[in-house]
Amino acid sequence: MINIAILGYGTVGSGVVEVLETNKVSIEQKAGKEINVKYVLDLRDFPGTSVENILTKDYNDILSDKDVDIVVEVMGGINPAYEFTKKALQAGKSVITSNKALVAEHGPELLGIAKEKQINYLFEASVGGGIPIIRPLNKSLSADEIFEITGILNGTTNFILTKMSNEGSDFDDVLKEAQDLGFAEANPEADVEGHDACRKIAILSSLAYGNHVDYSNIYTEGITKIRPRDLEYAKGLNCQIKLLGTSKKIGNKAYAMVSPMMIPNDHPLSNVHGVFNAIFIKGNVIGDIMFYGSGAGKLPTASAVVADIVDACIHIDKNVITHWYSKEMELLPLEEVPAQMFIVLKGHGHQDVIEDYFGKVTYIHSEEETVFITDHSTEGKLADNIKGLENAGLEVLSRIRVEKR
Amino acid sequence: MINIAILGYGTVGSGVVEVLETNKVSIEQKAGKEINVKYVLDLRDFPGTSVENILTKDYNDILSDKDVDIVVEVMGGINPAYEFTKKALQAGKSVITSNKALVAEHGPELLGIAKEKQINYLFEASVGGGIPIIRPLNKSLSADEIFEITGILNGTTNFILTKMSNEGSDFDDVLKEAQDLGFAEANPEADVEGHDACRKIAILSSLAYGNHVDYSNIYTEGITKIRPRDLEYAKGLNCQIKLLGTSKKIGNKAYAMVSPMMIPNDHPLSNVHGVFNAIFIKGNVIGDIMFYGSGAGKLPTASAVVADIVDACIHIDKNVITHWYSKEMELLPLEEVPAQMFIVLKGHGHQDVIEDYFGKVTYIHSEEETVFITDHSTEGKLADNIKGLENAGLEVLSRIRVEKR
Repeated sequence: MINIAILGYGTVGSGVVEVLETNKVSIEQKAGKEINVKYVLDLRDFPGTSVENILTKDYNDILSDKDVDIVVEVMGGINPAYEFTKKALQAGKSVITSNKALVAEHGPELLGIAKEKQINYLFEASVGGGIPIIRPLNKSLSADEIFEITGILNGTTNFILTKMSNEGSDFDDVLKEAQDLGFAEANPEADVEGHDACRKIAILSSLAYGNHVDYSNIYTEGITKIRPRDLEYAKGLNCQIKLLGTSKKIGNKAYAMVSPMMIPNDHPLSNVHGVFNAIFIKGNVIGDIMFYGSGAGKLPTASAVVADIVDACIHIDKNVITHWYSKEMELLPLEEVPAQMFIVLKGHGHQDVIEDYFGKVTYIHSEEETVFITDHSTEGKLADNIKGLENAGLEVLSRIRVEKR
Repeated sequence: MINIAILGYGTVGSGVVEVLETNKVSIEQKAGKEINVKYVLDLRDFPGTSVENILTKDYNDILSDKDVDIVVEVMGGINPAYEFTKKALQAGKSVITSNKALVAEHGPELLGIAKEKQINYLFEASVGGGIPIIRPLNKSLSADEIFEITGILNGTTNFILTKMSNEGSDFDDVLKEAQDLGFAEANPEADVEGHDACRKIAILSSLAYGNHVDYSNIYTEGITKIRPRDLEYAKGLNCQIKLLGTSKKIGNKAYAMVSPMMIPNDHPLSNVHGVFNAIFIKGNVIGDIMFYGSGAGKLPTASAVVADIVDACIHIDKNVITHWYSKEMELLPLEEVPAQMFIVLKGHGHQDVIEDYFGKVTYIHSEEETVFITDHSTEGKLADNIKGLENAGLEVLSRIRVEKR
C-alpha cells in the first residue's frame, strides 16, 4: 500500500480525491498497489466530506510520518509550497505537483534533489491541464531534437478570443462574461496579460532543450489590446488570432515569447477554440505533432496529477530522469528575433511613409483604416519602424505578430 | 553499451539507423547508455552503406549472441516476424516493433512472454507512425476510464479524401495520383479497404479497455464508394467525410468499427488533412483529448521506434507493464450498434417510401438526387430500412455514417 498526503483541498486537491475514488479499481490495477490518502493539509475544515477525518493543519504531521511515500502539492504559489516540496523530497518522499509557478521558478533544483534521493518530482499537471505533454516530451520524443514548441496554453484567454471572434464583442465585455461563468478569475491579470502562459512555455522550453529557460527573460504580451475589428481582419485573411506561447531554437540559441499572433486556418492550432488548449511541436525527425485537450478544470487537471501518482507508485524507488539542468539556456536578444507584423493605422493614405519605413508591404482592404502586413524582418527593426511611423504623426491602432506554420 | 539488432533494412529499418546516427548525442544522453547497432538482418546486400559490414542473412547470429539486448523488428507481416519475435523474447531480448499486423494478432501472448522474462515488447510505431499514442495510453491516461477512441489512422486514405474534397476529383483518379506520388501502394487494398486502420483500432481498443479486441470481429468498410458529390454535400452540411476507426464502450461491452464517417467541422478531427493522422480520446475524468501528427513516413515512424529503444534501454531489466490481457473483450453485435446515416437515393420524390421506413428524417436540398439524414437508430434497423428502400425499387447511391462529437 502507498500512502499519500495532499497539500491543499481546493479545486485540484478535491478533484484528486474524487478521481482516486471514482476510478479506484483501474487506477490501483495500473499502479500495482493500493493507494491510500492518509492526510489532507488545509487550514480549513471540511465537515461531512470524505476527508473530514484525515485533515491536518500541521505539515510536520506529514513530514514526520515515515509511511507517507508521496506528497501531492496542489496549493499553488511559491510559498510555502517551495519549502514544503523541498522538505518532502529531502525526506525521501516523491512529490507530484500542478504548481506551474513553482516548477518554472525552482524546477531544476527540485529535480536535482529527487534524482539524488532516487525518488521523483513529477509535474504533468503544471502545463496544459489534462493534456499529456510533460511525459511525452520526456519519453516519447526522446529520439528527436526539438526546434519548436508553440502552444495555446491558457484556456481563459482562448475562451475570450474565441467569443470575441464569434460574436464581435469587445474584450472588456467578454472578460466580464467569462468572470461570471467562472472561466476567468476576479483578478484576471495572470491570464489576460500572458503571465500564466509565460510560466508554461518556460517549463516546456526547458524540457525541450534540456537547459533552463528563465521565465523572467521571456517577452510577454497579453490580449487586452485586441479589438473585435482585428479579429474581423484575421477572418478575411483566413487566419485566427490566438494567444501563443512559442519557443524556437536557432542553432545553439533559442527564443521564447508570449504574444497574440495571427495564424493561418491550415495551422493545426487554428481550430483550437474555447477553453481548449493545444501544444504544437516540431522535431527534426518526427516532423509536426500536436497535443490537444482541456487545459484546465478540476477533473482534467486531477487526471494528470493522478497519472503522475500512478507513475510514482510504479517507480517508487527509481528516479525517472528528467533532462532539465540548471545551466541557463542562452536566449536570442528580443531585437534579433525573426518577426512579421500585421499593422493597423488610423485613417487612410499613408502609403509613402509606410513604404519609407517598411519597404514592400501587403495592404489589406479597409474602408476606415490603413491595414498592412510587413515583410519578414526582426523584432528590433519592426519596433524601430513602428516608432518611425509614430514620430511621423501616425496613430498605430494595432500591431499583431504573424506566425507561419 | 547496449547492442541492438535490426530485422529488416527497408524504409523503417534504414530510418532507424539514420535517426540513431543523426541524433546520437541526445539519444544516448536520454538512454543513459551508448547504443550500438551490432546487426542488421536482411536478405539483400547494401554495399557502400553504413550497415554494409554488420549485415547478416541468418537470424541465429542474432539470437545466439548474448550481447544483443534489444531486437528491432521492422520487417512487417506475420511470418517470420512472429517466430523471430517470440524467440528473441524467450531468449531474454527486448523487442521493439512497428508491425501492426503482428501486434494486433499476437499482442497479448508476446506481452505475456516479455512480462514473464522482465523485459519489454514495445510497439509505439505500430499505430499513428510518429504520434505518441501507445505510451500516453499506457502511462498518461492511467487515471481515466476510456470510453471512446476515434482516429484518422491511415494517411493514404486521408490524403485521397482530402484531395477529392479539395478538387472534386473521382476516387480512382486521386488513387492513381497518390500511387504516382508514393503515398499509396501499388496494391492499395490494405489502405483503401480499411484493413490497415482496422488493425490499428484493434490495438488501441485493446489497450484502452485492457481486454483483447480481435481485429477480425471489427466491421470494416473502405472509401472506394465515396463520390465527389458526397464530399460536396458534406461541405454544405459543415462537415467532412473521413475514414475513421472508432471504438466506444457502453457499459461492459464495446463496439469497434472502421468506416467513412461524416463529422462536423467543430470536431477536432475535422481539421486533420492530407497524410496527417490523429487520435481523439474521451476519458471519464480527462474529457476530450487528441494527438495529431504524421501517421507514416520513414523518419516519423523511426522516431517512434527509437523512442521505444530509449525506453527499453532505461528499463533494460524491468518490465514496463502494458495492460492488455488475452481475455477477449465482449463486443456489441453490429446490429445493436448506435448509428445515424446520411443516405442518397437516385432521382427525386420518394418521400412517402422513405418516411414509411425511416420515420422522421432531415432532407438536404439537391437538384438531382434525394438526400437525407436519418434520426438516431441502430445499425440493424438502418440496414433493414435501406433494404426496404431497395426492395421498393429505389437505388441507394450512397450511405455514410454520421458521427457526432
